Amino acid sequence: MTIPLVSETKVKEKVRSVLSDARFQHVSGVVEAADMLAKRFGADAFKARLAAWTHDYAREWLVEQWYEVGRARGVDEAFFEVAETLHGPIVATMLREEFNIHDEEIADAVRYHTTGRVEMTLLDKVVCLADYIEAGRNYPGVEELRKLAETDLDEALATAFDGTIRHLLDLHKPVFPLTLLARNDLWQKIKDKRKL
Amino acid sequence: MTIPLVSETKVKEKVRSVLSDARFQHVSGVVEAADMLAKRFGADAFKARLAAWTHDYAREWLVEQWYEVGRARGVDEAFFEVAETLHGPIVATMLREEFNIHDEEIADAVRYHTTGRVEMTLLDKVVCLADYIEAGRNYPGVEELRKLAETDLDEALATAFDGTIRHLLDLHKPVFPLTLLARNDLWQKIKDKRKL
Repeated sequence: MTIPLVSETKVKEKVRSVLSDARFQHVSGVVEAADMLAKRFGADAFKARLAAWTHDYAREWLVEQWYEVGRARGVDEAFFEVAETLHGPIVATMLREEFNIHDEEIADAVRYHTTGRVEMTLLDKVVCLADYIEAGRNYPGVEELRKLAETDLDEALATAFDGTIRHLLDLHKPVFPLTLLARNDLWQKIKDKRKL
Repeated sequence: MTIPLVSETKVKEKVRSVLSDARFQHVSGVVEAADMLAKRFGADAFKARLAAWTHDYAREWLVEQWYEVGRARGVDEAFFEVAETLHGPIVATMLREEFNIHDEEIADAVRYHTTGRVEMTLLDKVVCLADYIEAGRNYPGVEELRKLAETDLDEALATAFDGTIRHLLDLHKPVFPLTLLARNDLWQKIKDKRKL
């Protein structure tokens, strides 16, 4: 594992060079939130920060680029259902060549940061939830998520996914199947935990 | 196709013999609604009634029976995610031996009546929506569905699925993945149709 050789500053600068100022500010917020959540819930904070810095690296590409590069890099079919979910898995395949990050845990956290998945790792959850609650976010329900995130990572994330699904239902827009499977899995695990 | 040889009265009596009075009343309501919707939207009303009479034939079994018979009859893995969706595909495999109904369209309408699916047939939609709006149903939103069902089968059904999903989100219960795919597909088709 070559993680310790990666310079966080270099990663940050490379990300800054391709993103709009507004997006870079969001990404910086996600890094801070991911660092905080990692420390709170016992994840590797350095990995969480690297995943957070890189997670939106391809976020501002054109839809056509997402499709083309997604196909070329063999991104899983599930992500093609909704174009806005493609940047995660695309960046996951670029971490080695672009950032010298050779770490499957980080790659997975980046890959699933928009959609979630069944059996999310602790790092997946930290990065995904950080994206929902970073300081720049402002939408109905975000304060409830920040409150939940103080004590219960799973419930905060399950609630966040449910909010996304409700929002997409309201707009008659496609809901990501992976997100549905992720929230089903999280609520089941929360229920099982409470039964113990 | 042996459909014309099937006696609707015999099917009805067999269904009545295994269901509680309350459930049989619901099924009778679905038959009436399915007949009405079939005539309204141009589906085969006889097939719609046969699917409606039989759709809940295994609805009152024990959960253990659903699992056991579902496994034995090779029901698709997707239905095992949520036990309450198993009776449809189970009954679909029993139509020949129990009712002498040899018709794949009817079998599909029965199989998917709880969950829906991608690329629903006209008969699938009629039976599924009839189950939502039959005269005995009484829940928040049912009047809106009945209103929509007067003119737009797809929008009524997509709205019905969204209501089911919202209800399950509210309860923190698992949402059927097939239903999500079905509503994504329906809303996409509605949007495409309106663009024409």
